[in-house]
Amino acid sequence: MNQLAAEGILGSYPERERQMMDLTEMGQRAKKAATILASSSTQVKNSALILMADALMENSVRVMEANQKDVEESQARGMSEILLDRLVLNEKRVADMAEGIKSLIGLSDPVGEIIWGSRLPNGLILTKVRVPLGVVGIIYEARPNVTVDASVLCLKSGNAVILRGSSNTLSSNVALVGVLRDCLKEAGLPEDSIQLVSSPEREYAVQLMRLREYVDVLIPRGGKDLIENVVANSTVPVIETGIGNCHIYVDENADVEMALQILLNAKTQRPSVCNAAESLLVHGSIADVFLPRAIQALTEKKVTVYGCSRTLSYGQEVLPASEDDYYREYLDLKIAVKVLDSLQEAIDHINKYGSHHSDAIVTNDYSSAQKFTQEVDSAAVYVNASTRFTDGFQYGLGAEIGISTQRLHARGPMGLKELTTSKFVVYGQGQVRK
Amino acid sequence: MNQLAAEGILGSYPERERQMMDLTEMGQRAKKAATILASSSTQVKNSALILMADALMENSVRVMEANQKDVEESQARGMSEILLDRLVLNEKRVADMAEGIKSLIGLSDPVGEIIWGSRLPNGLILTKVRVPLGVVGIIYEARPNVTVDASVLCLKSGNAVILRGSSNTLSSNVALVGVLRDCLKEAGLPEDSIQLVSSPEREYAVQLMRLREYVDVLIPRGGKDLIENVVANSTVPVIETGIGNCHIYVDENADVEMALQILLNAKTQRPSVCNAAESLLVHGSIADVFLPRAIQALTEKKVTVYGCSRTLSYGQEVLPASEDDYYREYLDLKIAVKVLDSLQEAIDHINKYGSHHSDAIVTNDYSSAQKFTQEVDSAAVYVNASTRFTDGFQYGLGAEIGISTQRLHARGPMGLKELTTSKFVVYGQGQVRK
Repeated sequence: MNQLAAEGILGSYPERERQMMDLTEMGQRAKKAATILASSSTQVKNSALILMADALMENSVRVMEANQKDVEESQARGMSEILLDRLVLNEKRVADMAEGIKSLIGLSDPVGEIIWGSRLPNGLILTKVRVPLGVVGIIYEARPNVTVDASVLCLKSGNAVILRGSSNTLSSNVALVGVLRDCLKEAGLPEDSIQLVSSPEREYAVQLMRLREYVDVLIPRGGKDLIENVVANSTVPVIETGIGNCHIYVDENADVEMALQILLNAKTQRPSVCNAAESLLVHGSIADVFLPRAIQALTEKKVTVYGCSRTLSYGQEVLPASEDDYYREYLDLKIAVKVLDSLQEAIDHINKYGSHHSDAIVTNDYSSAQKFTQEVDSAAVYVNASTRFTDGFQYGLGAEIGISTQRLHARGPMGLKELTTSKFVVYGQGQVRK
Repeated sequence: MNQLAAEGILGSYPERERQMMDLTEMGQRAKKAATILASSSTQVKNSALILMADALMENSVRVMEANQKDVEESQARGMSEILLDRLVLNEKRVADMAEGIKSLIGLSDPVGEIIWGSRLPNGLILTKVRVPLGVVGIIYEARPNVTVDASVLCLKSGNAVILRGSSNTLSSNVALVGVLRDCLKEAGLPEDSIQLVSSPEREYAVQLMRLREYVDVLIPRGGKDLIENVVANSTVPVIETGIGNCHIYVDENADVEMALQILLNAKTQRPSVCNAAESLLVHGSIADVFLPRAIQALTEKKVTVYGCSRTLSYGQEVLPASEDDYYREYLDLKIAVKVLDSLQEAIDHINKYGSHHSDAIVTNDYSSAQKFTQEVDSAAVYVNASTRFTDGFQYGLGAEIGISTQRLHARGPMGLKELTTSKFVVYGQGQVRK
């Protein structure tokens, strides 16, 4: 900390505040900021976003220096290459963040939208108005882009945010949040609209999960352990996001070439993200044609294949899969493969072992496609397309705070609207109930 | 239990099942039923509803007998008149339940509705389809009408339900659920679509709150203690409903006659329900004109008035209010009154002491109305109307499972749509991500 302060990468996040870190006080300040944000105009919020995009570019060197510190320390701790890839900031990635911010400016402000209205027979005028959620807590892993993404999405949707990132990316986060808070101040918005829990102790994460009086929703972004921990310990309502044990099911009547392309794209195009495929299911009657080619293609792409007993017979490279492999989100160049004898078995397998994120069938059979989309209980279900499309930008939502794998409030990619709630505003002329 | 069985009011709810009451097994059966319900046609669900409405009327005598037992036992335990009023079933109330069921038949089925769609530039066809939540748990107090309402709303929206009512209304619930399950069977739907935790031990409520693997959402319906208990102990996602510390704020420029009518309606028309007023706030500059008449009118209606020091000077009947009185949901002929010196004080009071349910301003000042509706952070905010209108039927939603006072998923009266979630179904022709 002191070293960071000495290096001048703390922006407006004063040492004093970080040392007294009391989350109750942080919650109170967030609530206060949220009240102001809720009635801030689109214009003011957009002006802050413009400042932020520019400031990130102007401060890219000091942000990357802070990030370099995180990267070196994480490397020294033996972090895997794939996780390091998510942690690293380079010029392109900082520029991408700035572009991401700019892209929000043009999106319509969800706050104040009248989403329903009715004039009741008794003359009452009923309106249902979109309002911010209030204070959003984000608990996440070593991905500094989440720091910026989450902050600006919350700002545009009128929410205050409390960020609790991984200790592995603390320097990056402190630098980024410092830049963002300076811009809030310059735009005339409360700095406490964006706050960072900058102490690495686990105790603070637990405090945040219990800050029910001040935090309206907690969005954990990370792996299975993180999410399960938050769900088990939080009294603040949680939106579960992003555990992706995604499946590609190759049906009896699949186009083999198409299936290969979709499989390779879903598994290898970016294996570290939640919408990458982790499991391949193959109908027994197409296994002879499809699996030898699939195993060869995966192996050429350096994917380790774990297979069921039937899969083992299709390639020497295949290692035996345990029951656990079918539950796993590898986030790595690994895949679990199973041969099944019916579409129903595939659906049952996905609903049992999957994470209800994104699952695809490759088929030319109309009934199979309909049955699969109806019965697979996931946030996004695909016919003849890669699971990699489950993403707010790809879906044209313009933005994404995460991908909900739960059923309440939001399911699938969450954009600005999913960061709002509503209230009924009712106009009368003295009506009473009979 | 054995006595009930002997009396033949158990319907198809066999003794054996109640004795082995294992909620894990109950959860598994609910999940299985939910899968079938999710793809059941509107026609089949409606045919079950028709059977239920008829069967309730046909079995009204035995239902009322079972209810009489609950009433007598609750009276013996000293239950208050107002709570007894919510427990009692008479012919009219049974007929109302049957009418309530019939009114659902004509409502459009939310399941399968395509709520959004898009053709992406890459040719992917994106649809967002409404699907049931899955398994809904309801934990509630001694209100047998909730047993029927919740069951049929869940059925129409394709959800299985697990009910856990108060032990004070166990006989009524067993009788009612027996009738409903018979009808499910007759309509060819799984009986386990509606299950009752028919053991009164608190342990089962706790089990239900932890049944995360099988229960998708828990909706507690009842008083503050019940809700807080569920929130604190549940790992299943919760929708908080119905704590109503509702306010009537009489502004400086209020029409005094209108304010009196709204106050009396909100406080006395049905004091035992959540949208009844519990607090009255009065602007100081109208207190001399308004409060003496208000206190007199309330007293005539047998309402006990607890007031701040300034209120005390307007009527001998007024008792001193403690800080706690402003937090209370009396659900009784009692009201807490406070005189304030500005609209801002009223807004701050409501946001601090209120339950974010329903709050009203009586005013003829346009700016006051706008400020109040913008800044009061409640599910429903009224100008010049009684808070008693916060209700799914009154709002024209056709039905109501509860009134959400939380921000996530649903806020205010929850109808059929609020018992659903969505999934993305995406149709491709081999698209992969670049």
